[in-house]
Amino acid sequence: MEVVDVIRAKRDGQRLTDGQIEYFIRSYTDGSVADYQAAALLMAIVWRGMVPDELAKWTAEMLASGVRMDLSSLSVPTVDKHSTGGVGDKVSLPLAPIVAACGAADPMLSGRGLGHTGGTLDKLEAIPGLRVELTPDEMLRILHDVGAVICAAGPGLAPADGRLYALRDVTGTVESIPLIASSIMSKKIAEGTDALVLDVKVGSGAFLPDIALARELAETMVQLGEAHGVRTSALLTNMDTPLGRTAGNGLEVTESVQALSGRGPDDLMEVTFALASEMLDLAGIDADPRSVIADGTALAKWNEMIRAQQGDPEAPLPEASERRMVVAETSGVVTKLDARGVGVAAWRLGAGRARKEDPVSPSAGVVCLKKPGEEVNEGEPVLELHADDPSRFDPAVAALESAIEIGREATEPQPMVLERIRA
Amino acid sequence: MEVVDVIRAKRDGQRLTDGQIEYFIRSYTDGSVADYQAAALLMAIVWRGMVPDELAKWTAEMLASGVRMDLSSLSVPTVDKHSTGGVGDKVSLPLAPIVAACGAADPMLSGRGLGHTGGTLDKLEAIPGLRVELTPDEMLRILHDVGAVICAAGPGLAPADGRLYALRDVTGTVESIPLIASSIMSKKIAEGTDALVLDVKVGSGAFLPDIALARELAETMVQLGEAHGVRTSALLTNMDTPLGRTAGNGLEVTESVQALSGRGPDDLMEVTFALASEMLDLAGIDADPRSVIADGTALAKWNEMIRAQQGDPEAPLPEASERRMVVAETSGVVTKLDARGVGVAAWRLGAGRARKEDPVSPSAGVVCLKKPGEEVNEGEPVLELHADDPSRFDPAVAALESAIEIGREATEPQPMVLERIRA
Repeated sequence: MEVVDVIRAKRDGQRLTDGQIEYFIRSYTDGSVADYQAAALLMAIVWRGMVPDELAKWTAEMLASGVRMDLSSLSVPTVDKHSTGGVGDKVSLPLAPIVAACGAADPMLSGRGLGHTGGTLDKLEAIPGLRVELTPDEMLRILHDVGAVICAAGPGLAPADGRLYALRDVTGTVESIPLIASSIMSKKIAEGTDALVLDVKVGSGAFLPDIALARELAETMVQLGEAHGVRTSALLTNMDTPLGRTAGNGLEVTESVQALSGRGPDDLMEVTFALASEMLDLAGIDADPRSVIADGTALAKWNEMIRAQQGDPEAPLPEASERRMVVAETSGVVTKLDARGVGVAAWRLGAGRARKEDPVSPSAGVVCLKKPGEEVNEGEPVLELHADDPSRFDPAVAALESAIEIGREATEPQPMVLERIRA
Repeated sequence: MEVVDVIRAKRDGQRLTDGQIEYFIRSYTDGSVADYQAAALLMAIVWRGMVPDELAKWTAEMLASGVRMDLSSLSVPTVDKHSTGGVGDKVSLPLAPIVAACGAADPMLSGRGLGHTGGTLDKLEAIPGLRVELTPDEMLRILHDVGAVICAAGPGLAPADGRLYALRDVTGTVESIPLIASSIMSKKIAEGTDALVLDVKVGSGAFLPDIALARELAETMVQLGEAHGVRTSALLTNMDTPLGRTAGNGLEVTESVQALSGRGPDDLMEVTFALASEMLDLAGIDADPRSVIADGTALAKWNEMIRAQQGDPEAPLPEASERRMVVAETSGVVTKLDARGVGVAAWRLGAGRARKEDPVSPSAGVVCLKKPGEEVNEGEPVLELHADDPSRFDPAVAALESAIEIGREATEPQPMVLERIRA
């Protein structure tokens, strides 16, 4: 088989055969197919798409390029969550200990921040001493002992995805539903979970602002999960406004601990409980996630998990040395606080990376003092910006130029959970 | 500027800006843009196409990546021809001496065979001693002395095209009208000719079998030539049947010399004279190409040109050691002789290459003993296959399986010149 014939077939809109997919993924993983040939094929896939059984085979081959973790030694059901990425989306942090406190085990492999959206691993690393790079044995031991672990995917899981993801990033081939779906699902299936809930974000702060595309992505991923024996469902959730009151690594850890202590903001808790209930339902566990907050067992699980990953849950988090307020230009009710604007501001303040190899600041970010529906007076602070370097404030403020709208009366609040999608 | 933004813009269907095109061609030529990024952009161009002024800028940058030859020291008008490639298409060989004999100078930069279509340089090299790799100075001197030269493009002409062409070949991005047009035209404009006639082949043996696509390619190239100050026109010519009676390197040289001696087959002479008339018209020369055949001056120019390129026009050409006949399965009139089938057979016999670095045979090929409209008896030879290695016959015969059709009566002969396209 010649790889150029595989590229031509997809370019001409054909379904790739199982043999072509096997050949391509294996040859690309072993290095015999060149990056430039893979890049041409990826762009042809962005163009032509993939039909469901073609994508299932593509994902299966990505999975087969590495190992699938074996969690069968655990005595409790395993269930995980994946979010497509948002602003202030710290849900993973309270969620893993909540479902563990309810009797499930959550083997949560997470990622780094990408663009204006935060990354769970970057947030956790704001905690002094905490390690996210664990061996498969360490991960399994923590799952046994605690029931929750949040760490990076090792190189043995879906290595084809690692190479393809890096190539997509530099060739303009990220934005493709089959490529996004196969990338997420090959890693999530490889982690060995029995069940998976996808949080597909919709709105200005999401990668797919359009609900129709978000729904298509959710349906595609649910199909892929079920095709590989993982009970999978998806919630489409609102990402027009930052979730909770903070966007930034350490700031979000603090808010997550508040959430686990029963003092979380309503929108964050609504999404967290909806995802927790969906996860417990798929895991076959009849428990109320609210009760493990109320009785302190979820917070205890958090502390256990942080210690197991060599972090100190009591240690103070780094604080930014510089602050700047963004104030209301008029009096009234906040009618809009744009998630993308706040996300870009947090990114520019230092919470995200310009290049993959850059470090992130544990302390930079944005605190939303006012959110939609809340009253504000002219000159009163709406946002509090945190940075270590005051030169970062002006670019951040520029990103917020039309992010805040103030009106005469509150608009109808939007629901946080828009749709549930099951197989 | 980031190249990924250029790729994304084209992926999303935008017209690339002049700045983006300059940046991409320059950065790719100097090596700072990677092959995988160029491959993604090429596939996005196959997908989205280019609007006319975008393609004109793209071609201008390809041209600007190298030098444009200066032929202003010649005292006669310069004019050239380019064919998109066919089977038995040896027209360039008689054509260059014909127009030189009529008083023009033809600086004909040519290429190698590609797939089932022959290459003018491969054909010429069947002549013992002949050199096609000439320096610009050698080329100019022969043009001065003889008025015709057929040689390879040096590395200084449109080097960006050299790199992009090699990449397109291995990434399934050859079949794109803007990419084909800019590749051909950047080289032809760089050779410095005043005028250019394009022979765009249509039919089973052509790269673009469909007449609508061939017309679009012709119109695109005519626009590009005129935009760069080259008087350009195109003829769409028939390539359903091999041109003349031979397909193969040395065989086509022999037939070309016959043509220059006044003994060429009708279809070959019709296309040759049509192109010659078009070239002379664009060059502003009032001469009859038939007369330079009749009076022997065209053949004399051929001999001069071959000697100037260090070939011996008197030397016998290599002959294949093995022959096999393909005979008629029934009696009647030949109604079809498929150009693609014959082209693939000649390729498999050794006249073409499987890989770029392979040598070609000077002697292998196909002689068409019968052509459409001619009568044949059952068992009588229709094609004579020539090869140096008898193991090549069976694969060649397989390519001819449905290439010959014999009916009760002759079908209406098709015109050779289908359309003329001018600015």
